[in-house]
Amino acid sequence: MKEKVTIVKIGGALLEDPDQLEAFCVAFLQLAGRKIIVHGGGQKASSLSRSLGFEPLMVEGRRITDAKSLEAAVMAYAGWANKHLVSRLQAKGCNALGVSGADGDLIRAGKRPVGSIDYGFVGDIRSVNTKSLKALLQAGFVPCFCALTHDGAGQLLNTNADTIAAELAIALSSEYRSKLYYCFDKAGVLADIEDENSLIRTIDRKTYEELSQSRKIASGMIPKLHNCFHALQEGVERVFIGSEQMLSSPESPKTEITL
Amino acid sequence: MKEKVTIVKIGGALLEDPDQLEAFCVAFLQLAGRKIIVHGGGQKASSLSRSLGFEPLMVEGRRITDAKSLEAAVMAYAGWANKHLVSRLQAKGCNALGVSGADGDLIRAGKRPVGSIDYGFVGDIRSVNTKSLKALLQAGFVPCFCALTHDGAGQLLNTNADTIAAELAIALSSEYRSKLYYCFDKAGVLADIEDENSLIRTIDRKTYEELSQSRKIASGMIPKLHNCFHALQEGVERVFIGSEQMLSSPESPKTEITL
Repeated sequence: MKEKVTIVKIGGALLEDPDQLEAFCVAFLQLAGRKIIVHGGGQKASSLSRSLGFEPLMVEGRRITDAKSLEAAVMAYAGWANKHLVSRLQAKGCNALGVSGADGDLIRAGKRPVGSIDYGFVGDIRSVNTKSLKALLQAGFVPCFCALTHDGAGQLLNTNADTIAAELAIALSSEYRSKLYYCFDKAGVLADIEDENSLIRTIDRKTYEELSQSRKIASGMIPKLHNCFHALQEGVERVFIGSEQMLSSPESPKTEITL
Repeated sequence: MKEKVTIVKIGGALLEDPDQLEAFCVAFLQLAGRKIIVHGGGQKASSLSRSLGFEPLMVEGRRITDAKSLEAAVMAYAGWANKHLVSRLQAKGCNALGVSGADGDLIRAGKRPVGSIDYGFVGDIRSVNTKSLKALLQAGFVPCFCALTHDGAGQLLNTNADTIAAELAIALSSEYRSKLYYCFDKAGVLADIEDENSLIRTIDRKTYEELSQSRKIASGMIPKLHNCFHALQEGVERVFIGSEQMLSSPESPKTEITL
């Protein structure tokens, strides 16, 4: 029987709100067994960029990571956000250890090829170092990943946190029974983003196709759902989207993604 | 027979100079056995502060860490400096893993009590988590510490990197034969800071007393030497001060501190 591991993705905004962070830490502590956090930090990187006197670059609504933006992202994600989270979790007795994908060569990525858009220093994940990650988990650490990887040749790369969470869960599913939780500020996926009562309890392929056509679902939800299905197809046992309450109480409302 | 461990402290300025960083990485790779790096980053924190629109606070020549300065230090040390070093070392095949004292609860400190000066969020080390540090070393990681600790109650603290290096070497000396290297841009301790040829090969207590009276020695060297003697008294086998060349060639000129 394989041991269990839980991978929890949280947004960067949560780290900037003391009450939300506290609620998350309390809920996360309740999770039994080996566990990992992946966090974003885009808002902090943007506000840091502005404080440093430059606007975050966007092309067609997508963030472009030039050298200056990468430096701001490294400071905001691996510095401020990561250590803020780790120190709060440690205060509650959770043995958090903050890492980027460069640390321990945990996640290697390739710089995204320049196509119609040059995304700059953005990485697409090539491999997860399951052996080293397992060594950290088995030593009793709770790895907390920020959304940075490296190319193995000295270049740090900005990498989507949702994708990191899915790829970690997939890589660990060879050694563990892995569960993946995407936490955000809603109870789960809403059929209509304007209506808090439109929570969808289960999304399978068919529901996903219907939602993809809908204009009422949150636009960021489609790529997130894509990550969820990819994870399930590649061996992750269960995948959920919801608020941090789902971590501590199994009966709390949330969305489960199923194949 | 105890295994060996080497603790190497480097200055933050080295991380900002690609040639110096390359030379350091090459020399560090030559070191056999378990090893740890501790790095500074004060210059980057100061330049970041200025870019963010505030001057680093100094009182009587000592740095004061208020809330804004701490945020800049966390971004500069744990973010930029630490991940820059880790990604460069990884590119050379060294399995670096960047940490602060909060990660894995590796170094716990107490906020320095307010006396004639309020240093702000500055930590004095209380304990090193030898068990967790040993777990990282035995798993094959090369821990790279930035100069931050925590109080165990959620507060990050700015902590002197020289002191961190000494305290790590002392704590590990119960389990390992530990060596401590302080790397900087000179060949070692100079009797006269203006004269590169005035290298002192060995400094014992008596030489130290004489140097303390001298006005020709670099002012930062006295507290560094104090850390060296403290380390030797508390069980560290050997302590050296010199350039990164001492890591790769045993016969290179350097200063050894002896009791």
